[in-house]
Amino acid sequence: MTQTHQKRTLLTVVTEAAIEESLISDLDKLGVGGYTVTDARGRGSRGIRDAAWKEAANIRIEVICNRVLAESVVSYLQTHYYANYAMVSFIQDVEILRPEKF
Amino acid sequence: MTQTHQKRTLLTVVTEAAIEESLISDLDKLGVGGYTVTDARGRGSRGIRDAAWKEAANIRIEVICNRVLAESVVSYLQTHYYANYAMVSFIQDVEILRPEKF
Amino acid sequence: MTQTHQKRTLLTVVTEAAIEESLISDLDKLGVGGYTVTDARGRGSRGIRDAAWKEAANIRIEVICNRVLAESVVSYLQTHYYANYAMVSFIQDVEILRPEKF
Repeated sequence: MTQTHQKRTLLTVVTEAAIEESLISDLDKLGVGGYTVTDARGRGSRGIRDAAWKEAANIRIEVICNRVLAESVVSYLQTHYYANYAMVSFIQDVEILRPEKF
Repeated sequence: MTQTHQKRTLLTVVTEAAIEESLISDLDKLGVGGYTVTDARGRGSRGIRDAAWKEAANIRIEVICNRVLAESVVSYLQTHYYANYAMVSFIQDVEILRPEKF
Repeated sequence: MTQTHQKRTLLTVVTEAAIEESLISDLDKLGVGGYTVTDARGRGSRGIRDAAWKEAANIRIEVICNRVLAESVVSYLQTHYYANYAMVSFIQDVEILRPEKF
């Protein structure tokens, strides 16, 4: 089993539920092969306007991929979404036991 | 893009759904500027009584902040909630690409 | 507070909602004392057939335990579920402040 331990990158994106379809479509175009979406709610500052943001319908999208793809996705999101939507992305190293799938 | 990579702390709190309002209010007072809540269900031991705990309505709260604030929140939760509520908190380092928001 | 910081392992399993009951029962037999389940949806490749998998009802199970148990669970899942179900498992180090519970 040990030999199949491999590092991957977990990318988590928390954003407005309203843009789920657009975002999933973009992830697909960027080469993301799989994702998990959970419904959430939250509060935070919104976009560059930094105005107060009431608790709102959010989604939490998780992607397991390699670091290069994760960073490229975040870079795309930053350019195309951050100014206009409440969005937070973060990256973590994780270990998986089924590297052939990613 | 690389220059905006920064380390932050992800604090995750899993607890009873019934105390969501009280907990969010406390997070706000402690200086937490944003959070994400997802509905969950789970099973575990409960509080210091350590009695068996049936699967129950839970919430999962995530906060991205700096480590000092994360530890101060956990310390507060430990003092004010752990004895009487089913609650688990854990902390992880994450990388973000939009440090100016936190 | 510092003295109670301890490393634990966070095991996350994302899989088909249909097998929740079976999976929870297996986790219990493997010695997992608590877990959190959230409903999710997702898309990815499925099992060894690696066929395209449409967005489907998923669950996301989280377990905080020690690394030995986490790896033993993943090994079990790999043997008993990976061939026939869409399932992804990953492991991360986390810090907790209540080590006596795990």
